[in-house]
Amino acid sequence: MTLTIWCNAKFSAAETRLLIEGTRGHKLVISERASASVLAAGRHDPTLPDADVAFGQPDAGQCLACGRLHWVEVTTAGYTRYDTPEFREGFLARGAAFSNVSEVFADPCAQHVLAMMLAFGRRLLPSHRDQLTDRSWHYAERRFECRLLSGQTVLMLGFGAIGRRLAQLLAPFGMTLIAVRRQTRSERGVRIIPEEKVSSALAEADHVVNILPDNASTRNYVNARRLSCCKPGARFYNVGRGTTVDERALLEALRSGRIGEAYLDVFETEPLPPEHPLWAEPHCHITPHTGGGRHDQDEAIVRHFVRNLEAFTRGKPMVDRII
Amino acid sequence: MTLTIWCNAKFSAAETRLLIEGTRGHKLVISERASASVLAAGRHDPTLPDADVAFGQPDAGQCLACGRLHWVEVTTAGYTRYDTPEFREGFLARGAAFSNVSEVFADPCAQHVLAMMLAFGRRLLPSHRDQLTDRSWHYAERRFECRLLSGQTVLMLGFGAIGRRLAQLLAPFGMTLIAVRRQTRSERGVRIIPEEKVSSALAEADHVVNILPDNASTRNYVNARRLSCCKPGARFYNVGRGTTVDERALLEALRSGRIGEAYLDVFETEPLPPEHPLWAEPHCHITPHTGGGRHDQDEAIVRHFVRNLEAFTRGKPMVDRII
Repeated sequence: MTLTIWCNAKFSAAETRLLIEGTRGHKLVISERASASVLAAGRHDPTLPDADVAFGQPDAGQCLACGRLHWVEVTTAGYTRYDTPEFREGFLARGAAFSNVSEVFADPCAQHVLAMMLAFGRRLLPSHRDQLTDRSWHYAERRFECRLLSGQTVLMLGFGAIGRRLAQLLAPFGMTLIAVRRQTRSERGVRIIPEEKVSSALAEADHVVNILPDNASTRNYVNARRLSCCKPGARFYNVGRGTTVDERALLEALRSGRIGEAYLDVFETEPLPPEHPLWAEPHCHITPHTGGGRHDQDEAIVRHFVRNLEAFTRGKPMVDRII
Repeated sequence: MTLTIWCNAKFSAAETRLLIEGTRGHKLVISERASASVLAAGRHDPTLPDADVAFGQPDAGQCLACGRLHWVEVTTAGYTRYDTPEFREGFLARGAAFSNVSEVFADPCAQHVLAMMLAFGRRLLPSHRDQLTDRSWHYAERRFECRLLSGQTVLMLGFGAIGRRLAQLLAPFGMTLIAVRRQTRSERGVRIIPEEKVSSALAEADHVVNILPDNASTRNYVNARRLSCCKPGARFYNVGRGTTVDERALLEALRSGRIGEAYLDVFETEPLPPEHPLWAEPHCHITPHTGGGRHDQDEAIVRHFVRNLEAFTRGKPMVDRII
C-alpha cells in the first residue's frame, strides 16, 4: 500500500533524511508552507487534500474537510486545536486515526518535575543565588532546611504518559503517590482517585503536581477554592498548561503561605511578561516552558512517526493514539 | 547487662528525650564538654574512662587509652580522625566495635547528587539566574540544551552506602552505572571495577560522581592526570571530601572544557573563601556542604544509635559497623 504522506514540519537535514528513509515506499510531500518549529500551528495548505497521512501541525478544520486523510500525527504532546467534539466525531465517523507524540515529551517532562522536587528538597536554588550574589556559606541553616522526598505524599492532577513516567522515577523514593484521573482504573504504585475526592487528597499532599492539558474542562482548574484545600506549605508544580491555573489565586496562596513553594514551567501568557508579579515572588521558581525539552527532540519525533507508520500500514496498535 | 553510655553530642530537648528513652536500663552520662554540633570533634573528657559505650565524637587517642570502652558510634559519616592503623589495631585487639552513621546521610547525599544531575539535565540553574536578573525567556535554545539522563553513563569514584542508594535512585533512568571500589565484589545493577581500570572508565563516563572519603590514599585522587582521561565535556560532581580533588587541576579542566560542568558540595577549605576562583567559574555550581543535610538529622542519628544499641546488647549485627 503506497500512501501519500504530507508533512508540514520543517526538520533539519539529518531528521529530514531520517524521515525520507523511514517513509521509503510511500510518497512523501513536504509542504511549502512548513512551520519553522515542530510546535507551531500550520496553515491551510493546498497539498493536504491529496494526502492519506498528515504529519506535523495541519490545520484542524482542513483535516476534517479532507476526506482522503486517514491518519494525522501531530508533532506535539498538546493537541488543543484538535480537541473538539466536531474533530473527534468527524474522525470517528470516517474511521480515521489521530495521534500525538506524548511519549517523546513524557520522559523529559517527568525528569523536569523530579528535578524541581529535588531542587526544592536540596535547596539548590537558594545556594545558586548565594553563589551569584554574596558567596555566603549557609551551611548549618540550609542543611536543616533540606527535606528528603522519602515518605512524602505526591498528588498528580491528571495522569497520562508524563504521570506514569514520573511514578516510575519516584518509585525508589518510597513516597505515597495519588493521581486524579477521569478513568479510575488502577495503576501500579499509584492510588487513582476520581475528581470528587480531590479536596481531601489536596489536604494530604506535600507535593501537588499539575499535569493537566488545556481544554474546556480544565481551564482554571487550580483555583482559589482548590488551593485553599492544600496542606499549609505544600509545594505546587505546573508542567501541564498555564490556562489550568488561576495565576492570581496562586499568587495569593504563595503570599499567604498556603503554598510554600511553586515551580512553574507554563503560564497563561508565554513568554511570561517581565512585569508579571510571579517573577518577583520569593518562593516562585520559573522555567521557560522547558519541561518537555530534549536535545534530540526532532529526531525522537521523526522516529515516533516512522514507528507508528509501520504500525499503521500493518494494522497494528499505534503509540499515543488518541482517536 | 547495664552499660555506661557516654555521649558528648549536644541534642535538642526532643532528641535528648529520645536518647534517654532509648537507653533506658543503662546508665547515660552526658558529657559536660558536649559539642554544640553533632559534627564537631570532641575533646579529651574525664568521664570517658568509665564508659562501656561512647556516642558522639570522642577523642580518638583517648578512646584507645580507655580499656573499658567496647563500642564507639560517631555521629558523622566521615571518620578521618579514627581512620588510622593504630586505632583499628587497638580496637581489633580488644574486640571493640566502631561504627558511624553513614545510613543517616546516605539517602540525602544520594538525593543531592541526583538533584545536581537533574538540575544539569533540565538547565534549572541558568533559568533561575534569568529569573533573578533580566527575566529573559530562552525557550527555544534552552529546550535544545536539555539532556535526558536516560542512556548516559555514570562513574562513581568510591562505592559505599551513598553509591548504593544513588544506584537505586538511578535505576529507573536506564543509565549505565560503573563504580570504582577496593573490594571488587559485584553489585546489582552496577559494574564494579578495580582502581587499575579507572582511566578507561573515565573516558566512557558522561557523569563522574566523586564520593571518596578523606584518607591518606584518597588525597588529590582527582588530579590533572585523571581529569585528562575524562570524556570531553563530562560532568563532575563532588559529595565526597574536598581533599580528594586537586582544585587547581579541576579549575584548569573547567577552563579547557574537558569538564563541561562541575557541581561541588565539598572543598579543600570550608567555607570556600569568597575570593576562591571556583565561585566565579561559569560552569561550576556550588552548594555549601549541604549534601547530607536533612531537617530531621539529629533525630535520625539518635534512632540509628538506639537501634544499634539494641543489636549490640543482643550480639546481633550492627548497621554501619566499620571495625
